[in-house]
Amino acid sequence: MNDILIDRDELDFLLWDWLGLQDVLDRSGSEVDREAADAILAMSHKLARDSFLPLFKLTDANEPVLEAGEVRALPQIGEALREYASLGLFAAGFSEDHGGLGMPTLLSSGSLLQFFAASLAVSAYPMLTVANARLLTTFGSAAQIETFAMPQIAGEWFGTMCLSEPQAGSNLADVATRAMPDGEDGLGARYRLFGNKMWISGGDHDLAGNIVHLVLAKIPGDDGQVGADTRGISLFVVPKFLPDGARNDIVVTGLNHKLGYRGTTNCVLAIGESGSPVAGGDGALGWLVGEPGQGLPQMFQMMNEARLNVGMGAAAAGYRSYRHASIYARERLQGSPIGAVAKTSGPIIRHPDVRDMLMAAKCYGEGALALVLYCARLVDTAKHDPADDALLSLLTPVAKTWPSEWGLAANDIAIQIHGGYGYTRDFDVEQLWRDNRLNPIHEGTTGIQAQDLVGRKIRKDKAGAFDRLGDLIAATVAASVDTAMAAQGAQLGETWDRIAAAVAQLRECDAAAANENATGFLRAFGHVVVAWQWLDRALLCVDAAAEDRVRAAKPWACRYFFERELPRIGAWLGPIEGESRLLSQMNEDYL
Amino acid sequence: MNDILIDRDELDFLLWDWLGLQDVLDRSGSEVDREAADAILAMSHKLARDSFLPLFKLTDANEPVLEAGEVRALPQIGEALREYASLGLFAAGFSEDHGGLGMPTLLSSGSLLQFFAASLAVSAYPMLTVANARLLTTFGSAAQIETFAMPQIAGEWFGTMCLSEPQAGSNLADVATRAMPDGEDGLGARYRLFGNKMWISGGDHDLAGNIVHLVLAKIPGDDGQVGADTRGISLFVVPKFLPDGARNDIVVTGLNHKLGYRGTTNCVLAIGESGSPVAGGDGALGWLVGEPGQGLPQMFQMMNEARLNVGMGAAAAGYRSYRHASIYARERLQGSPIGAVAKTSGPIIRHPDVRDMLMAAKCYGEGALALVLYCARLVDTAKHDPADDALLSLLTPVAKTWPSEWGLAANDIAIQIHGGYGYTRDFDVEQLWRDNRLNPIHEGTTGIQAQDLVGRKIRKDKAGAFDRLGDLIAATVAASVDTAMAAQGAQLGETWDRIAAAVAQLRECDAAAANENATGFLRAFGHVVVAWQWLDRALLCVDAAAEDRVRAAKPWACRYFFERELPRIGAWLGPIEGESRLLSQMNEDYL
Repeated sequence: MNDILIDRDELDFLLWDWLGLQDVLDRSGSEVDREAADAILAMSHKLARDSFLPLFKLTDANEPVLEAGEVRALPQIGEALREYASLGLFAAGFSEDHGGLGMPTLLSSGSLLQFFAASLAVSAYPMLTVANARLLTTFGSAAQIETFAMPQIAGEWFGTMCLSEPQAGSNLADVATRAMPDGEDGLGARYRLFGNKMWISGGDHDLAGNIVHLVLAKIPGDDGQVGADTRGISLFVVPKFLPDGARNDIVVTGLNHKLGYRGTTNCVLAIGESGSPVAGGDGALGWLVGEPGQGLPQMFQMMNEARLNVGMGAAAAGYRSYRHASIYARERLQGSPIGAVAKTSGPIIRHPDVRDMLMAAKCYGEGALALVLYCARLVDTAKHDPADDALLSLLTPVAKTWPSEWGLAANDIAIQIHGGYGYTRDFDVEQLWRDNRLNPIHEGTTGIQAQDLVGRKIRKDKAGAFDRLGDLIAATVAASVDTAMAAQGAQLGETWDRIAAAVAQLRECDAAAANENATGFLRAFGHVVVAWQWLDRALLCVDAAAEDRVRAAKPWACRYFFERELPRIGAWLGPIEGESRLLSQMNEDYL
Repeated sequence: MNDILIDRDELDFLLWDWLGLQDVLDRSGSEVDREAADAILAMSHKLARDSFLPLFKLTDANEPVLEAGEVRALPQIGEALREYASLGLFAAGFSEDHGGLGMPTLLSSGSLLQFFAASLAVSAYPMLTVANARLLTTFGSAAQIETFAMPQIAGEWFGTMCLSEPQAGSNLADVATRAMPDGEDGLGARYRLFGNKMWISGGDHDLAGNIVHLVLAKIPGDDGQVGADTRGISLFVVPKFLPDGARNDIVVTGLNHKLGYRGTTNCVLAIGESGSPVAGGDGALGWLVGEPGQGLPQMFQMMNEARLNVGMGAAAAGYRSYRHASIYARERLQGSPIGAVAKTSGPIIRHPDVRDMLMAAKCYGEGALALVLYCARLVDTAKHDPADDALLSLLTPVAKTWPSEWGLAANDIAIQIHGGYGYTRDFDVEQLWRDNRLNPIHEGTTGIQAQDLVGRKIRKDKAGAFDRLGDLIAATVAASVDTAMAAQGAQLGETWDRIAAAVAQLRECDAAAANENATGFLRAFGHVVVAWQWLDRALLCVDAAAEDRVRAAKPWACRYFFERELPRIGAWLGPIEGESRLLSQMNEDYL
């Protein structure tokens, strides 16, 4: 059976050698030691392989259906997630107070990656549930935590995040869902909600005992009006089944039929029977989480976790397709390389074009895994170090975008390496490509990430995170001197200077000008961050024995990345360096 | 109803203004004048919209099935193709001797593009049939033409090309299908064929009265052995139904289930009952076309036509998705651009990131259309001008690859502009992306095109096609002096010098070294050719009135391409300029 997931040797190298998981465990105060961590990683690999991977194609070929107002998903998804719950994996990252193991995020991410690799669609349920419960444990009242978070931490109930509406996607200021005060009870200030939510992953299904929706809505002012900006947005916990067991007024009005990621139900939800209080509907019952008007900042905690998770999923899908291609390229016999003496057909891995594609896919897949795990470690260290928190904030748009775009490029390459076979549904690579195509869209598109990076992180960088990153990069450059990677170190130093100059320009110009070429900056910045991390890993491996496949490959991949990938930044930075306003100068009719 | 195909104003600009279709008609000796040509283009648009476009999603959702050894396709495909035949479109490009109109390829391509845009999958049947009949009219005997080509020219029978086998994809030297002599009859030297063919588009179906297979096979020598190279390959015409109406021994043993392009049946064919003459099978009856051992050169005529057609299909699919995105970006309201005074949600086309994506998709879509039509004109002029024939040969790998790769990029962008909606099957863009993904694979992968370009066209350029292209580019550069496009002209001149230097290197080094970085060269060369054509069109339009949407946009698109796309070539040429042998030096175990 095909059991290609994340190579355990690669994962161990990243976690233990490169990112110092031992140190993270020691500082975490958790009971988990190396032996326990290894057992968790082994168990995750086994469960992902035995219970999630068999659902990869099955959930793609058997989409959820809407029957009599309820969504039916494949029961096997529920079975796999009950196994996941029984091993304590929903709870793993929570504190012991909340029934968890206090496992560091770096370790839980190492576990999660195996499940993402096996099936993005099935993994989305625990991913959303854990993020939902984490938001509640952070901002919810004790009663809300007990009632709504604990069953999710146990994996008995699942969670969603309800932000988008049909008319409000990237721009949440347009949220029109309203919350009307309805007194108070043991769960806090109670509201009746009315509105429509769109693109709700896990928005309905029959896989868990209840569904806990975290809903963004606006509380009307005394004049009955809601504001048109994001400041009036509050956060509400709105369960499918109320604490007394009654069905809340949340109705699935449609299922989205997707290109991929099909095992995750994606719903249009009508909240509040009639959709309008004026028409006399009763509304859906919900309870305010935290303070009014704090909905967006609170949701951003969940959103940032979700963005990092999107990056992890994209990295896992990209990496897995690289492995499929790497194995296929050894098995498929076709032709002999030009200039070869023997003319009998050999494995296609001998053709330079195939080697070129494989090395690119490796750089994307492994580079993305490394990037997201680096950020997972920052989640752990940020708890005690504000500088790491600022660095995490700076890198989050990169951790979301780079794996989404380049993981997808790895999927595309994997199809190409498989040739016609890769274009058929008999192989896995076409579905990985389809599944992964969602990742540059959801939880903030690439364009939104670029606005976040340039507008919020670069131009308002009060904590000096960019300079901190520059120091870290300079240290890696310094460490490369007099090593086999000295040329790459010098190239990285020069490239960083170019990035820093672009940053100075982006900080000096006005907001509109900075935004105009923000996406190109995000791409260039992402490539430089990944290049730095490639060099950092390569430096760990310059003396690796030739037969140590995982480590000995690192300097070669680093050379490849610096030779063929890093030079791409010229095209992306050009418009910033040239202060181009071409996009805004252009007549809209010509587009 | 959605009727987004090729914009007729754009097509007219390309055909009449830029490529001089009037001149081509005048020299063609055909009866077709401007009025007739306009009528053909209008009729093609209408038929594509009314009969092919409704099949776009329908054929995707209802794949062909294999029942009792026969393939059943949607009957609506047959109906649409009978309409296509009734308008004489199968015959259009053939000479009057063969029942055609003698329509120039430039005009027939303008027609074909509308059908490709409407449905790549449905258009594949006439595309293959016409190419098959053209090969027979070129190399077949009078009896073969009468028996096998004429019913295809009438659109009553359909054709295939049978090259690949399960073990022989990119490398045709491995073809194992054998042809055993079986005497001679009125159709020529008769053979009995035994073997397996893979990836046969239109390999079986119930849409036409017969299926004419053109099959590559080897004739064993006196020792009963076949050679392991391409020189022993001969070409045979092997019909599904024999002239006496009997069923030939060609059995569909499997249907490939594809990522996209689903309306075109794609078959595994067993030719010859038992697969081996030794086992006593009777074999499939076929007739030799042309001389023994000439199979590959003969098939290359069909292959070159198919490669240009692949580029046309990819261009049409890429361009159509640009148009979908362009329309959607005007309709979808979401947010206001950073720095805008009004904070109410406006159309997303106002956001610079969306404009950036749209302009890239426009440059890819329109650039690809222009490139394939330019090559279509070369097909016409090459009949009388060997220099144009050599230029067509040089540009064929570009015309196949550039639209396949960048048309697909336009599809990807169109999904992104549609956001979550683009990820659903309610919109067309996801299917365009899936359909188009085949184009970088079939009729020679991108890597094979790069080998062809560098190995056959650049290094063995006896006709001086590369220098001829350089002269054409120099003329465009010269024409840009003292115009609004002078900066782009200067940039093109410098870029061409860089390409020419890379060519000098590729010609000086050995074949293996030249091949090692051939794909990067193909990408860079393709971008420069497209940049040149963008400049050439922009120069026609520098004085266009602002309200002339099609023409006034051209200089802006040209500026965009030169600012953001052309600089990409640095990353592709770098390894050639640095004489990198990284790919061959790398240990295979590290990939």
